[in-house]
Amino acid sequence: MYRSHNCGALSAKDIGKTVTLCGWVQKLRDKGFIGWVDLRDRYGVTQLIFDAERTAPELLQAAKELGRETVIKIKGEVIARNNANPNMPTGEIEVLVQELQLLNAAKTPPFTIEDQTDGGEELRAKYRYLDIRRNPVKNNLIFRHKVSMAVRQYLSDQGFIDVETPYLIKSTPEGARDFVVPSRMNPGQFYALPQSPQTFKQLLMVGGMDRYFQIVKCFRDEDLRADRQPEFTQIDCEMAFVEQEDVLHVFEGLTRHLLQEVHGIDIKEFPRMTYAHAMKTYGNDKPDIRFGMEFAELNELAQHRDFNVFNAAALVVGIAVPGANSYTRKEIDALIDWVKRPQVGAKGMVYVRCNEDGTYKSSVDKFYTQEDLAAWAKATGAAAGDLICVLSGDIDATRAQTSALRMELATRLGLRDPKVFAPLWVIDFPLLEKDPETGHFHAMHHPFTAPKPEHLELLDTNPAAVNANAYDLVLNGNEIGGGSIRIHDRDTQSKMLSLLGFSKEDAQAQFGFLMDAFEYGAPPHGGLAFGLDRLVSILGGQETIRDFIAFPKNNAGRDVMIDAPAPLDQEQLEELYLSSSANKQ
Amino acid sequence: MYRSHNCGALSAKDIGKTVTLCGWVQKLRDKGFIGWVDLRDRYGVTQLIFDAERTAPELLQAAKELGRETVIKIKGEVIARNNANPNMPTGEIEVLVQELQLLNAAKTPPFTIEDQTDGGEELRAKYRYLDIRRNPVKNNLIFRHKVSMAVRQYLSDQGFIDVETPYLIKSTPEGARDFVVPSRMNPGQFYALPQSPQTFKQLLMVGGMDRYFQIVKCFRDEDLRADRQPEFTQIDCEMAFVEQEDVLHVFEGLTRHLLQEVHGIDIKEFPRMTYAHAMKTYGNDKPDIRFGMEFAELNELAQHRDFNVFNAAALVVGIAVPGANSYTRKEIDALIDWVKRPQVGAKGMVYVRCNEDGTYKSSVDKFYTQEDLAAWAKATGAAAGDLICVLSGDIDATRAQTSALRMELATRLGLRDPKVFAPLWVIDFPLLEKDPETGHFHAMHHPFTAPKPEHLELLDTNPAAVNANAYDLVLNGNEIGGGSIRIHDRDTQSKMLSLLGFSKEDAQAQFGFLMDAFEYGAPPHGGLAFGLDRLVSILGGQETIRDFIAFPKNNAGRDVMIDAPAPLDQEQLEELYLSSSANKQ
Repeated sequence: MYRSHNCGALSAKDIGKTVTLCGWVQKLRDKGFIGWVDLRDRYGVTQLIFDAERTAPELLQAAKELGRETVIKIKGEVIARNNANPNMPTGEIEVLVQELQLLNAAKTPPFTIEDQTDGGEELRAKYRYLDIRRNPVKNNLIFRHKVSMAVRQYLSDQGFIDVETPYLIKSTPEGARDFVVPSRMNPGQFYALPQSPQTFKQLLMVGGMDRYFQIVKCFRDEDLRADRQPEFTQIDCEMAFVEQEDVLHVFEGLTRHLLQEVHGIDIKEFPRMTYAHAMKTYGNDKPDIRFGMEFAELNELAQHRDFNVFNAAALVVGIAVPGANSYTRKEIDALIDWVKRPQVGAKGMVYVRCNEDGTYKSSVDKFYTQEDLAAWAKATGAAAGDLICVLSGDIDATRAQTSALRMELATRLGLRDPKVFAPLWVIDFPLLEKDPETGHFHAMHHPFTAPKPEHLELLDTNPAAVNANAYDLVLNGNEIGGGSIRIHDRDTQSKMLSLLGFSKEDAQAQFGFLMDAFEYGAPPHGGLAFGLDRLVSILGGQETIRDFIAFPKNNAGRDVMIDAPAPLDQEQLEELYLSSSANKQ
Repeated sequence: MYRSHNCGALSAKDIGKTVTLCGWVQKLRDKGFIGWVDLRDRYGVTQLIFDAERTAPELLQAAKELGRETVIKIKGEVIARNNANPNMPTGEIEVLVQELQLLNAAKTPPFTIEDQTDGGEELRAKYRYLDIRRNPVKNNLIFRHKVSMAVRQYLSDQGFIDVETPYLIKSTPEGARDFVVPSRMNPGQFYALPQSPQTFKQLLMVGGMDRYFQIVKCFRDEDLRADRQPEFTQIDCEMAFVEQEDVLHVFEGLTRHLLQEVHGIDIKEFPRMTYAHAMKTYGNDKPDIRFGMEFAELNELAQHRDFNVFNAAALVVGIAVPGANSYTRKEIDALIDWVKRPQVGAKGMVYVRCNEDGTYKSSVDKFYTQEDLAAWAKATGAAAGDLICVLSGDIDATRAQTSALRMELATRLGLRDPKVFAPLWVIDFPLLEKDPETGHFHAMHHPFTAPKPEHLELLDTNPAAVNANAYDLVLNGNEIGGGSIRIHDRDTQSKMLSLLGFSKEDAQAQFGFLMDAFEYGAPPHGGLAFGLDRLVSILGGQETIRDFIAFPKNNAGRDVMIDAPAPLDQEQLEELYLSSSANKQ
């Protein structure tokens, strides 16, 4: 037994005890005849004291030579501290050291192991094992553990069975690219890593397993955007003999339970919004509803004058920015530059100042009367002191631009409080979306999502108009997860795959096993998946998933700590019947 | 809401209620004017009744046409059954059906969905989703879920943190072959799938995480033996500031907890045995101690006569087989043939019958006196009525052969009761083993296992004599898991890798990140991993892990249900800068 207590355990009630502690030297203060060491472990910090009167001289000397992050074991007596520190759980005591043992030396760490560190992101990634010693990272990982445990317990209590599905499966063009794994035992053939256990969980439903869940790693070989990981974790669930309402009920319950467990926040019923409404009102299928600034479509109110920019636009949208009439002309110009950045892509922005005296001052005063502007204010809900921002153009682009502007302004105005949680169900997604370039249909959710039963006929006549019983859970403007009621018969699945451009042969080769299964008594079923990385980071009051992953990869998909991926030996390649053309390029 | 109750829920107290049930048609009995349907779901079976008096004629007709495994939804009234079936939880009631809805048709399943099925292993693997409907498979999966939940809860209660380690890591020749994953974003480079999270959990210890666990998939590209899977699940744990005793204490506690939770069996303290003793007494480092038949080394007692077979042998070993003097000559000859099979490989077997009258009759009577044989009987513990079996030859081979014989006989004699649980710690493993062919050292456990501190000096002078603080947990003759105290300083790790034949450059390229980490304040640490598949199958009273895996692979590493692995598109290969030479072979 290395230690009798951990470094967060001792308090005044332990005074007089002889204890053994282990940990890392966090800090050393040397006053000559007396020295203090802050000893740190996962549980906290305990102050050690060495002094000329009560400590053997060679021990005092040894203590003074301890470097930061050295690993030591000490034995000593718990004594009352002269100056208690009420900010530390162990602040009432210190340990007068009688024995000191060096367990392992430490080189000077490349950055300070403090809550606020001087290490940059790249350096901390390379020495992730040191970064994990820091409280913010350590606490995030412990927080993730607690959320995972709570999720599993809740679902298990609801009768869900944790079933492990395989990682070595078959490559299917389900959406993103698969990571593949060459098979040595089956030359020329490859496994794929799952983008999700979708087909397996559906087969579990066919198998009668009824309520399934799994916290499971998924893999997508995508060009990485900021805050995407090639491997990520999903809370994956599926239920049989259910309608959409049953699924929403269970997972609203789970989310409510987590908010309660983690933050003591009690949210009664989650609001719901159709996809169409979300797009129209927030320009976005994952609206942040912690604040207003809802879209007002101003076409009717703005297309009766000589302002050709608006007249030529398919959509004119305004939002009322609370209190933003205080912006200077320079600030507004900067905002206009912001919406014109290529990442946002607006051509320009019209604005209306809502003055305290009830008058309006706009950038389009030569086209619009005070009455016109008053009508815009009424439509957007702008009050005196607000600023109305108006964008226009193609419907999709204008919505996306206005949504970006709305989020940016909310951030600037401090309206995105990470301590406030605003969950929202977005429902009634379209089944398909048309690629504007190729004219081909893509599955909005995935190829296994069922059309709404009342839209089944439309599949043949007007597929773009078909809606699905598909739903997303949105939390604070982030998509936490989503799901759908699935197709459970061969004919519909086959029709769906054909709409998505699969030939009969390809459909059978790739999804034949699932369609075959549907013929042996498949129950109606549906489910959903939550992104655990995202869920945990938002519940943790942050938005960067990397901070909640023990060993994340960087934007190039590399683990810079272990330096992976890496070239293989020629021998290993030959065993796999592979050759790489990368070096010939 | 599809159903008001499940098919296992209704009992006499529900009589009179109107209920809605969903499920699969298990069985149909048609008596003309009356018909019964057994409706099955995950929770049980409920009998439905349709009769000419109380059921609409078209409904009765429809019921009669229901095929097995059809998915239906019914509404009806719970009534008392005329002939209650006390063997069924729902045996007191039946449901008089008022409404019947076909939810999905079913083709005739390729095998019967019954506890005892007529389907062969291959057929059931291809239609695994149908096999999962059968109680034995379904119950195994639910059992696995319960064990996983209990493991997580126990470890979490003990302060262990579930930390997810990455799946896309770097290939290292840690023992078995890695599965590799080509990186599209890093041309010519590959990730590897983890054979275990070994180095990551050690880095978590360096990171101060102190107590880590994870139930995690691991991957080994080995030539598959029976009952091995290319992907398997590990309960993976690591602790810092611990000695071997601390690790054994925690995981003995976990195992005891599981036996208690799952079977209500209370086992006080697990026995311990050194590796050397296990090999000498059972010829095996994972002895089944549910029964005796311990080895007696007979060299001294048997090498003083003219029997050259024994005189030339490095080892002569006997075991006393209880009650086996009843074997006929033919049965004993068959046993001799059994030990001579190539899979066992013995040259022959000497036997001694221990007669009820105290005399002995052996196959080597012309060399040995009754007193000699009595001495063998005493050494092996044979009593009247037993049969002594004696093998001889090289030490390692003879032990392995005698161990195989011992296990075979125990099986034949019914001594391996799956309801009896005999856990055992095997400790003090050698650090290294020498390959008899190449003379090279291999790590007995893995390259990160620490030598016993008192053997550290021997590393330079006599590596083969170095023991490790390494331990295995054995349950009923199966290795459930194992672990060790790890190396936590660069010098020892570097020396170990050099003993294993790594050049300085290779060691740094492959394990540099770990050795670097050891220089920044690595605490002493150790841990272990249990094989979950094996643990669950043994706790479940069975020995085939495949029965406890939802979607197992066959002996060729194939998933025959989804038909994986499979060839890739040329386009997909090109994106990965790969070409396959498999077809050119």
